[in-house]
Amino acid sequence: MNNPLLPWLKDTRITGDTLAGDASAAVIVTLMLIPQSLAYALLAGLPAHIGLYASVLPLLGYALFGRSPALAVGPVAITSIMTYDALLPYATPGSPEWVSGAIFLALASGALLMLFGFLRFGFLAALLSHPVMSGFISGAAVLIIIGQLGTLSGIAASGSNAFEQLRHIAQHLHEINLLTLVIGLSTLALLLLARTKAQPFFLRLGLRGFWLNLVTKAAPLAAIAVITLVLVVTGLSAHTATVGSIPAGLPVVALPEMGSAFSALFISALLIAVVGFIESVSMARTVGRAREVPTDPDAELRGLGAANLLSGMSGAFPVTGGLARTVVNMDAGARTPLAGVFSALLMVIVLLGAAQFLSALPLASLAALIIVAIWSLIDLKTLRASLKFDRSDAAGWLVTFFGVLVLGVEQGVMLGIALSIGTVLWRQSRPHIAVIGRLPGTEHFRNVNRHEVDTLENVVFLRVDGNLFFANWDRVREFIDQQVASLGASAQVVLNLASVSDIDSTALEGIEALFKDLARRQMGLHLCEVKGPIADKLKRVELNQRVPTYLSTHQAYEALMDQGYRLRAAQS
Amino acid sequence: MNNPLLPWLKDTRITGDTLAGDASAAVIVTLMLIPQSLAYALLAGLPAHIGLYASVLPLLGYALFGRSPALAVGPVAITSIMTYDALLPYATPGSPEWVSGAIFLALASGALLMLFGFLRFGFLAALLSHPVMSGFISGAAVLIIIGQLGTLSGIAASGSNAFEQLRHIAQHLHEINLLTLVIGLSTLALLLLARTKAQPFFLRLGLRGFWLNLVTKAAPLAAIAVITLVLVVTGLSAHTATVGSIPAGLPVVALPEMGSAFSALFISALLIAVVGFIESVSMARTVGRAREVPTDPDAELRGLGAANLLSGMSGAFPVTGGLARTVVNMDAGARTPLAGVFSALLMVIVLLGAAQFLSALPLASLAALIIVAIWSLIDLKTLRASLKFDRSDAAGWLVTFFGVLVLGVEQGVMLGIALSIGTVLWRQSRPHIAVIGRLPGTEHFRNVNRHEVDTLENVVFLRVDGNLFFANWDRVREFIDQQVASLGASAQVVLNLASVSDIDSTALEGIEALFKDLARRQMGLHLCEVKGPIADKLKRVELNQRVPTYLSTHQAYEALMDQGYRLRAAQS
Repeated sequence: MNNPLLPWLKDTRITGDTLAGDASAAVIVTLMLIPQSLAYALLAGLPAHIGLYASVLPLLGYALFGRSPALAVGPVAITSIMTYDALLPYATPGSPEWVSGAIFLALASGALLMLFGFLRFGFLAALLSHPVMSGFISGAAVLIIIGQLGTLSGIAASGSNAFEQLRHIAQHLHEINLLTLVIGLSTLALLLLARTKAQPFFLRLGLRGFWLNLVTKAAPLAAIAVITLVLVVTGLSAHTATVGSIPAGLPVVALPEMGSAFSALFISALLIAVVGFIESVSMARTVGRAREVPTDPDAELRGLGAANLLSGMSGAFPVTGGLARTVVNMDAGARTPLAGVFSALLMVIVLLGAAQFLSALPLASLAALIIVAIWSLIDLKTLRASLKFDRSDAAGWLVTFFGVLVLGVEQGVMLGIALSIGTVLWRQSRPHIAVIGRLPGTEHFRNVNRHEVDTLENVVFLRVDGNLFFANWDRVREFIDQQVASLGASAQVVLNLASVSDIDSTALEGIEALFKDLARRQMGLHLCEVKGPIADKLKRVELNQRVPTYLSTHQAYEALMDQGYRLRAAQS
Repeated sequence: MNNPLLPWLKDTRITGDTLAGDASAAVIVTLMLIPQSLAYALLAGLPAHIGLYASVLPLLGYALFGRSPALAVGPVAITSIMTYDALLPYATPGSPEWVSGAIFLALASGALLMLFGFLRFGFLAALLSHPVMSGFISGAAVLIIIGQLGTLSGIAASGSNAFEQLRHIAQHLHEINLLTLVIGLSTLALLLLARTKAQPFFLRLGLRGFWLNLVTKAAPLAAIAVITLVLVVTGLSAHTATVGSIPAGLPVVALPEMGSAFSALFISALLIAVVGFIESVSMARTVGRAREVPTDPDAELRGLGAANLLSGMSGAFPVTGGLARTVVNMDAGARTPLAGVFSALLMVIVLLGAAQFLSALPLASLAALIIVAIWSLIDLKTLRASLKFDRSDAAGWLVTFFGVLVLGVEQGVMLGIALSIGTVLWRQSRPHIAVIGRLPGTEHFRNVNRHEVDTLENVVFLRVDGNLFFANWDRVREFIDQQVASLGASAQVVLNLASVSDIDSTALEGIEALFKDLARRQMGLHLCEVKGPIADKLKRVELNQRVPTYLSTHQAYEALMDQGYRLRAAQS
């Protein structure tokens, strides 16, 4: 392995230009990160200020080991709700045990990600297919929004799934706190206004480029600040739930005592690690394509691993690459993970200076912020595309989506992983096998079902499209047995291995057994178009000396004609 | 789906010949089944006679839904030790709760197998690769043998893994019960004698065919009978542990009350179902090839499902197809599952008549029987073959083998499943991609690394060997990006899809995104040799109208030459 430290230095030279791009992107992303980090900490059932802790050292950790030029790491909605879901059976939200549990989840998922990164387990991204991941995120987004309805209206949340939560709110509408509801709805209105009108408004004012971007992205924070100010000035602040006291200064690094209850959280940490990684790596790929630099899933694993280990050491919870902030970071000109480092420095200033102000933020406003931020995660576009194009993908989306709503986030993601793995196994167990024949007058062999080709009597020519291994060999063997059953005595089987570039010991033993079974029945096996590495493996088990092997299908065809196998009339 | 009942009637006509074959095989298999069913019930921590219960109705259930002509269903060592392992955290071996738990495991794994069978989930066999399954069975066999050392010597077992159990026995050697040890070792000696000398001895006496087979296979039961008789006659029987009272007559059908503790056993039931199915289906395939009838994994799932449901309803524990008894059944001439029906009838006679005699069997003799039966499951042949042929397969064997010894059976099998799935995902994430060029003067395109071929300047021709889907698209895209990076402006990418017979929505969106990204950079994408079903899918998203598509690579080559792309000198 190359040096895993600072892998992004391979892709980019640091220049004045890149530094300027990183710094300006950092300013803009930090303006989004401040309210989001507080909100997502609340979503994870933690005191809001812990979100700020999760936004300093983790960003430095990613810059040390990660490679994406613009992935914005920090607290995100999906891993926050997963943290909440994981801890709920073991502790009370906000309690010291809860905080310890969250720290453990960050440390454990960080350690797992780091380990996977050094083991080069980037292929784990295939644990969740795109439609299943989309269905999962959409389901989690709906669940989060429903969960925020309570905070927005002042009704205490209850219910073990989305439908029960909705029913609980419907039955307790009389408990609505009017002030809280007004705060929530006005924040919602201001945020939607900021999203749709801020950019045209400031454009008309003559702002362009960096400054336009800055004020547009600062709009949500400004909206919340305005509402907070009004509440503080009018004294209404005391009558609604707010973030409350934030310890001034930097986080005190403290590790939890590892109790035995933590072992039960290990599976949760694994799921958080996997989901966080898959979400991040797909963002990293988008960034990589836009910036025309390669994406290295193993470096992303190590980067996220370092980020989570440092989040745990900061007394905070699991982090990963965020969707929205990464897009903003990229658009704002981030060129290297130094953007994250600058963002971390700005967050330190916020922690040192603005804690007092942040403590007055009303929770209902943060709930409104979560709803607006999360709304775009509901990805009906992928569902529509799947419905149009691949029914099984659409089924994967829907099952995972409703799985999350009915069973919860953790069971939902496990269901999604089972669905995705099942799909891979199912696809792999059905390799495409073609019976081929010779295009008359040529040396080309094509599928007998699609071309008029010549074949030989009592000989079957087969081509397997794909590698041979334990998950598909049985089906290949069954296909061959069916073909042989329709042929007479002294039938010959010619296996074209042109598309086979790998073969495992199960399939190799299978070919050996096939050869023996055919020989026992006075039938023959022939191989052709065997690639170099496969030929080497056949040699190692001395199959090459026993099974006739030809360079091309044509040569096998000619050899069998020489042995007296006669042409069968061209088939359609 | 065809009628799922009596699927084997499709393969065979019942004649006098098949009935005779089935009946004689049944007699021989039953002689093995009697002592083995008692021994494996003890292995599962159950009263011995429950093994007899598991050998009546389950065999009828398999005959109703299974399809293999000679699979011998009943209690087997692997699922018995898995049953023991699953129940240990929740109950005391032999207690009524333990029996209820075992019944639950049979019912739950039966229901799961039946469900999987009707859902056509036969591809689940790919959950464990052959080397991993071999490592698992070998590890479980060693674990079983170590566990039997205690019974053989009269030392009470203790320890949570194989090594601790061995240490416990070593530290308690002074507790050896000499009589028990003598019984165990003499049974062991007699059984080994029967295995190696019985056949030549009876051959010399002039026995042939059925009768030779009968007395050879009856030898283990006879050996144990002789020892039991000696003990009963000498009165020593009272000084060693024996099977003890067996309720006379047929089992009383009784279902356990479904307590909440059972939900914890659900994963265990799933693992037992999966392992039992994979072991059975591989035996069914061996039988099918020898008898030249097709193997239908979905019918095997339903057959085993029915067998386990009926085992649970008989008050017994999980069953599956046994390795040794299936081989004997096949060699003895079984032609249909009626052999199992006859075997079940013989077991009823045993239950009604011989219970009194069986109760005097010494446990040490049954332990010796288990050791001899299990010894051949330690499959070093597969390990040696893997070491020679495929290092990653060998690693899978070793990790699973030691995983079972250190972590136990259940964790071991989960480790094995994770390894196997990881292998599939890893293989799938690495599709073989070849850069191809034209063999000079022909219309053939071959890998540029292995042939001297013509290519065009600023054009890359690629062939992907295998289907495109979410687990491999990212790597294909990265490969293309790398190739494009080395080309100049207005580069063209030609994708040969000859080996692609399936494509999912992730890969389709990927091709669309690739097309757009290339277009943005004034580069072009071309497709060729697109198969019919893939062309249909491309049409559904209207990609076919935007991306130039050619019938053959040659046509794409000619078209690009017409557009002014010039020949590059032949490469080696």
